Amino acid sequence: MSFFDYDGKKIYYEAYGQGKPILILNGIMMSTFSWINFKDALSAENQLILLDFFDQGQTDKLEEQYTQEVQVDLILALLDHLNIDKINLVGISYGGELGLQFAVKYADRLDRLVLFNTAAKTSPWLRDIGRAWNLSKDDPLNYYLTTIPIIYSPKFYNENYKWMDARKNLLVEKVFSDKIFMDSMERLTISAEGYDVLDKLGEVKADTLIVGAENDYITPLNEQKILNKGIVNSQFVILPDTGHGSMYERPLLFTSLILGFVNVIQTEYGIVD
Amino acid sequence: MSFFDYDGKKIYYEAYGQGKPILILNGIMMSTFSWINFKDALSAENQLILLDFFDQGQTDKLEEQYTQEVQVDLILALLDHLNIDKINLVGISYGGELGLQFAVKYADRLDRLVLFNTAAKTSPWLRDIGRAWNLSKDDPLNYYLTTIPIIYSPKFYNENYKWMDARKNLLVEKVFSDKIFMDSMERLTISAEGYDVLDKLGEVKADTLIVGAENDYITPLNEQKILNKGIVNSQFVILPDTGHGSMYERPLLFTSLILGFVNVIQTEYGIVD
Amino acid sequence: MSFFDYDGKKIYYEAYGQGKPILILNGIMMSTFSWINFKDALSAENQLILLDFFDQGQTDKLEEQYTQEVQVDLILALLDHLNIDKINLVGISYGGELGLQFAVKYADRLDRLVLFNTAAKTSPWLRDIGRAWNLSKDDPLNYYLTTIPIIYSPKFYNENYKWMDARKNLLVEKVFSDKIFMDSMERLTISAEGYDVLDKLGEVKADTLIVGAENDYITPLNEQKILNKGIVNSQFVILPDTGHGSMYERPLLFTSLILGFVNVIQTEYGIVD
Amino acid sequence: MSFFDYDGKKIYYEAYGQGKPILILNGIMMSTFSWINFKDALSAENQLILLDFFDQGQTDKLEEQYTQEVQVDLILALLDHLNIDKINLVGISYGGELGLQFAVKYADRLDRLVLFNTAAKTSPWLRDIGRAWNLSKDDPLNYYLTTIPIIYSPKFYNENYKWMDARKNLLVEKVFSDKIFMDSMERLTISAEGYDVLDKLGEVKADTLIVGAENDYITPLNEQKILNKGIVNSQFVILPDTGHGSMYERPLLFTSLILGFVNVIQTEYGIVD
Repeated sequence: MSFFDYDGKKIYYEAYGQGKPILILNGIMMSTFSWINFKDALSAENQLILLDFFDQGQTDKLEEQYTQEVQVDLILALLDHLNIDKINLVGISYGGELGLQFAVKYADRLDRLVLFNTAAKTSPWLRDIGRAWNLSKDDPLNYYLTTIPIIYSPKFYNENYKWMDARKNLLVEKVFSDKIFMDSMERLTISAEGYDVLDKLGEVKADTLIVGAENDYITPLNEQKILNKGIVNSQFVILPDTGHGSMYERPLLFTSLILGFVNVIQTEYGIVD
Repeated sequence: MSFFDYDGKKIYYEAYGQGKPILILNGIMMSTFSWINFKDALSAENQLILLDFFDQGQTDKLEEQYTQEVQVDLILALLDHLNIDKINLVGISYGGELGLQFAVKYADRLDRLVLFNTAAKTSPWLRDIGRAWNLSKDDPLNYYLTTIPIIYSPKFYNENYKWMDARKNLLVEKVFSDKIFMDSMERLTISAEGYDVLDKLGEVKADTLIVGAENDYITPLNEQKILNKGIVNSQFVILPDTGHGSMYERPLLFTSLILGFVNVIQTEYGIVD
Repeated sequence: MSFFDYDGKKIYYEAYGQGKPILILNGIMMSTFSWINFKDALSAENQLILLDFFDQGQTDKLEEQYTQEVQVDLILALLDHLNIDKINLVGISYGGELGLQFAVKYADRLDRLVLFNTAAKTSPWLRDIGRAWNLSKDDPLNYYLTTIPIIYSPKFYNENYKWMDARKNLLVEKVFSDKIFMDSMERLTISAEGYDVLDKLGEVKADTLIVGAENDYITPLNEQKILNKGIVNSQFVILPDTGHGSMYERPLLFTSLILGFVNVIQTEYGIVD
Repeated sequence: MSFFDYDGKKIYYEAYGQGKPILILNGIMMSTFSWINFKDALSAENQLILLDFFDQGQTDKLEEQYTQEVQVDLILALLDHLNIDKINLVGISYGGELGLQFAVKYADRLDRLVLFNTAAKTSPWLRDIGRAWNLSKDDPLNYYLTTIPIIYSPKFYNENYKWMDARKNLLVEKVFSDKIFMDSMERLTISAEGYDVLDKLGEVKADTLIVGAENDYITPLNEQKILNKGIVNSQFVILPDTGHGSMYERPLLFTSLILGFVNVIQTEYGIVD
């Protein structure tokens, strides 16, 4: 429930608990509010920090188009503001992209890195899917139907359809019909169009946990295989029967994977008979 | 290049070659024209029959909304017109849905069945994706970006982006900007909303080849696993690194799989040491 | 470094650290000694307990053939000896089988359950593989070549072949040529032949983490899918490019997964927008 | 039912039917007799040729150890004997290895190539599994249990256990207890130890169909991915729920895949809208 000033803008963040610090890097449609059900678990033994990026939640909007680099620099500003030397970053999709760019640009400020549903670059395929999102932005129901079903695994969407449908009405009527929100979403989506760290993966030296989901149709498993191949100290796990929105579909695994990987005291193991 | 009358409508079909007859059941956005590069291979040793369903190609449009049942009955009408007793059906996606309904309703007119990228029912998830298509139908570029990228595997789309982009201009300017075509697409899409043969798979007795694709994000692999489990005499193969548009991504496998399965003289094999 | 008496036998165990207790249930060829490189990480915030089952390590041998039930009861005896009310169990393969039987028989003594590379029953296929092991037991090199390569993913075995080969000599000359050890291995292998909790999976109510490995050729992924389907409160993750010996191939993931799942304070999460 | 002389040895082969010629390259434990249930289907529209390699079936044994190259040259000798200019080769496992070597050494005599359950090289992992086979060769039951279960998918083995068990008795009593047969098996197995065409895959220009099986624990799917990546004109399909013995587990797919790929008249397809 705190703000700080950065580059003439008000930046919103929240911090909970004590211990090795974990900063969550939101997915594109998220905000600090998205973590309400996760924050107790994630702050029990750790300092948990949540952040609204530019054009998210309670942080100021940006009026002109930008690239993800301003968000990456915002992470650094927050660390400086909080006097945190080394941070553990947990990025989800768009947030994972920011995490990888931070790992390259500010390597000495990074402890461990956890990446859920993240790609190494915005391919033409992914960029064109994002453009379909933006072209639907003036019709709330169209935007909902273009963005939301594909984010979830068919299994989760169908089994939780009643909840999905109730939430649809809320999103369509309150959120996707808000022009200010939609303009923010458009800028956020465009800010990722030029994203590409494929040739820099070798520079990522942090211990990295890569989490892919079997039914992720936005950043499919092949993307995480590329990350795993390119990042030298990376570990890779796959969540079966799970879609792009893995944190909502597998919340217990989401928290367990983060806490286990961030808190384990030892990352290198000999082999013994 | 022939027409016949059915239920007061003109129906367009093509027939080539001699041999065991194969009727192709188009995917939703296809027409007889889609097969120009395949027809030589598929008619070399077989009679190949192509058909424009209602609201496709040169067959008449339907003005009022209908269900897939009218298309299923159209298959029967074509067989009667051509005096074909038993047919081998090859269905792609929407066409696979028609093939399964035909297998249930007109089992005695079916020889073998080949299903590419087909599901047993239109789940809420798939229906909502179809609704996003229809909500974008008045904006040709939006329609293109909403429907086309997701149909292909990211790998194919990115590696063939130049071709994709050239085709995009054609589709956006000539096809998706044609209101008559778009109204047809809308009706075709809606006609599949109530599709559900899940409880009737046990009635399908035909030898059936089910082809799934690893990167199919419209009718994902789980759907073909359900078909394989439910259809007693079914065989199942998976095309790796392939998307929903498997016939375009793997044309040689597409023709090979059809010809091999339809033409093999023996479907039951003992086991020998 | 402790012994206790149970049923007229000396039982060896080790305990380290303080916190939520974790008891490791060894795989068939393991002993407490196998955990030398893992015990620091696993006991940093937890009480870690290691145990040699009958016919393992420093616990007494059994002379007559037994079933796994005696090992399951040994787990209970250890808990009683240590005055532990509820335990977190981590089972590897054979140990996972014991963990599942404990979960059914002594449900009220179980907190959470972690299963690596575990099946719900010893199928004829798995039983016959075990019988091949036993038929090779009088020839140390044969035993090595029959049991060890298949335990590892080809990738790990080939990339670490130098280490494998050095260890081969040690195992062949010191371990597999020891008749007492080999007789123990034979009894342990036979003790699992009748294992079957398939119809009792519904009785397992503990929060359970199931870890499968993509290249596990002893208890393949299908087995863990069955566990995941049958155990109501289960989570499922897959380790790509990993074999049956996942703890050796992915030690950092092994410890991270255990610690994250056992220590997370919250296992149920609402869904929020 | 024919013999011809080659290099002072009697070579046994069979030929059936007329049409594009298909030569089957046996797996290691097979012979011409293995094809009794397949030969009608495969010779209906093709000339089908079966061959016993050295140390298989009715072809002469070799007394001294050899490498696979003598088998590769035997293929050429048979083609010359039959006056066949270009052949379609279908290799299974060991036979697939021969097929790949033939494709490199005698490229101008090859039409199309079909590879079931084949690897590009004998890795240390695969070589050591073969050595376990050979070390068990003096005990028929041990040999059976070491080689046979792992060849099949657990699902197939368990569901057909009664048949498996009956066949076990036959194999153990008649085949694996025949010292001449077992000496042949040992030489065949050793002949593959030095196999490695990994660096020559780029030289294979023939249209190639690669068939992998999801539960192949001898030549796992990763091996076929390597082949697919290395062979320029290759197609790749995966058989789900199938083991190394795919021809026995999926006989209808086995014949369909061969006939479709060998007989299709066109291998290059343009892309059309």
